[in-house]
Amino acid sequence: MPARDVRIIEVGPRDGLQNEATFIPTQLKLGLIEALAAAGLVEIEATSFVSPKWVPQLADAAELWPQLRSGPEYWALVPNLRGLERALEVGVSRIALFTAASEAFTQRNINMTIQESLDEFSEVIGRFRATLPDGRVRAYISTAFECPYAGRVDPDAVVGVASCLLELGVDELSLGDTIGVAAPPEVAALTQAIINVVPAERIAYHFHDTRGTALANVATALAFGIRAFDSSAGGLGGCPYAPGAGGNLATEDLVYLLERSGYRTGVDLERLARATLPVLNALGRPPGAKSQLALLADLDDGA
Amino acid sequence: MPARDVRIIEVGPRDGLQNEATFIPTQLKLGLIEALAAAGLVEIEATSFVSPKWVPQLADAAELWPQLRSGPEYWALVPNLRGLERALEVGVSRIALFTAASEAFTQRNINMTIQESLDEFSEVIGRFRATLPDGRVRAYISTAFECPYAGRVDPDAVVGVASCLLELGVDELSLGDTIGVAAPPEVAALTQAIINVVPAERIAYHFHDTRGTALANVATALAFGIRAFDSSAGGLGGCPYAPGAGGNLATEDLVYLLERSGYRTGVDLERLARATLPVLNALGRPPGAKSQLALLADLDDGA
Repeated sequence: MPARDVRIIEVGPRDGLQNEATFIPTQLKLGLIEALAAAGLVEIEATSFVSPKWVPQLADAAELWPQLRSGPEYWALVPNLRGLERALEVGVSRIALFTAASEAFTQRNINMTIQESLDEFSEVIGRFRATLPDGRVRAYISTAFECPYAGRVDPDAVVGVASCLLELGVDELSLGDTIGVAAPPEVAALTQAIINVVPAERIAYHFHDTRGTALANVATALAFGIRAFDSSAGGLGGCPYAPGAGGNLATEDLVYLLERSGYRTGVDLERLARATLPVLNALGRPPGAKSQLALLADLDDGA
Repeated sequence: MPARDVRIIEVGPRDGLQNEATFIPTQLKLGLIEALAAAGLVEIEATSFVSPKWVPQLADAAELWPQLRSGPEYWALVPNLRGLERALEVGVSRIALFTAASEAFTQRNINMTIQESLDEFSEVIGRFRATLPDGRVRAYISTAFECPYAGRVDPDAVVGVASCLLELGVDELSLGDTIGVAAPPEVAALTQAIINVVPAERIAYHFHDTRGTALANVATALAFGIRAFDSSAGGLGGCPYAPGAGGNLATEDLVYLLERSGYRTGVDLERLARATLPVLNALGRPPGAKSQLALLADLDDGA
């Protein structure tokens, strides 16, 4: 097992595919997840136990999960108690929950106040821990910098939600730049504020690269000791709830920046660059990662 | 005139268009340059007086130059004495010269050693200053981080070439990540080394975004006091001499990062996002800047 200085939480199979219009058949999803694991990714958010009515792209969660090969640590998004029951039935032991730092966003996105979402988390976490005392819980805090409906978000608002989540027993937080607007000074300000309250090793960033700033933000967070980042291989996905939002930070670009900066990721970039090609082909989309395009072009040259 | 904290040297009409396969008619180029100026860009590298044999895309340099509207400061690339004579004939007063920090690169790219290129610069600058004592000279140092033929480039090699260029009377240097491979630690190392020898205000960076790292590198250089960056509106162009190289850093992404970080650029991003559309249309290419795509999508939503 190669040494790793930075954790990469691969969210392409969930966050990526849920935001693509086309349903990817279960066997193709499994092939993607296996290829990602073969490239060296050891934490993969594999699917979501949200209602198929809301996210038909991941309607096969219960069918997919039992077929996942052992090796990586798999996470599943769980929106509520009903989703948790479905997840527990198939053996999920790492769950991701979802709230935001902006009331306007939770209202429009999950039809709850932030407090209502935290109350629901309390029930979900209670039930989860009762079944799996050693299970892991991560929580997304979306719109950690700006909300598409209410504008800039104060770091204190994020720190407030983060504190509540820790009290509820969440193991780690993933702070999302949901609409991909943040620049390094904001990342510095939020990181500085939150590491006073939450240990750096319990924080991940979930950057979107809508305006090309994601890697600059990663570099800033690294300087503050953050060592976990969410990303989506091939640049799969985006956020349909945020107007104008492009996609997640691409895993290939993240790996390139980290490795070139001297951090070990354990990921083989060449295998990773090819891992998403069958799914991209099914979606009729070109590769969405700049490092992936550059590498595939180099490989073509060499062939 | 709006205040500006950072200089942006717009290189799309030269570096961008020289690397696109299609010849853009002179009037369309003039329209592009006027639209860039109207968006608030005040330094534009408008063309190159290189032989039309080598760069047919810019064969109309002598025809274009006299038609440029007054307002911005226009730069022209001048490869040699012959190019300088052509440039002086039409009234060019700001010239850009081109060398590299890697012998293998100058040999393959301009068929000279670095020293031979510096000897040629000496003649060109002498002739230029004799005609225009107040003219401005900038010099590109390509492959400032890595050469596609010889691998990593030591910061000392860049500092050495930079010192020679200053002795020759060059006003400012533009350090190029020609193949778009650099990550922030390398930018920090080179910047730290070079600002001991060259004042920060005489240094610009010319990043390529081939692997998505350009804005992270800009943010790093800003932290060291660098306040000048080259970029190409709409992500026009690339470098045909470097295998696998994608395009220049897109001006829209640079402006977005700078403004969002609190630096004033004087550029209207909405006008800029539209400025390249006629040329992109003629090239049959989609917008190449992420911020441009995001902004145009937002504007469509609002329409």
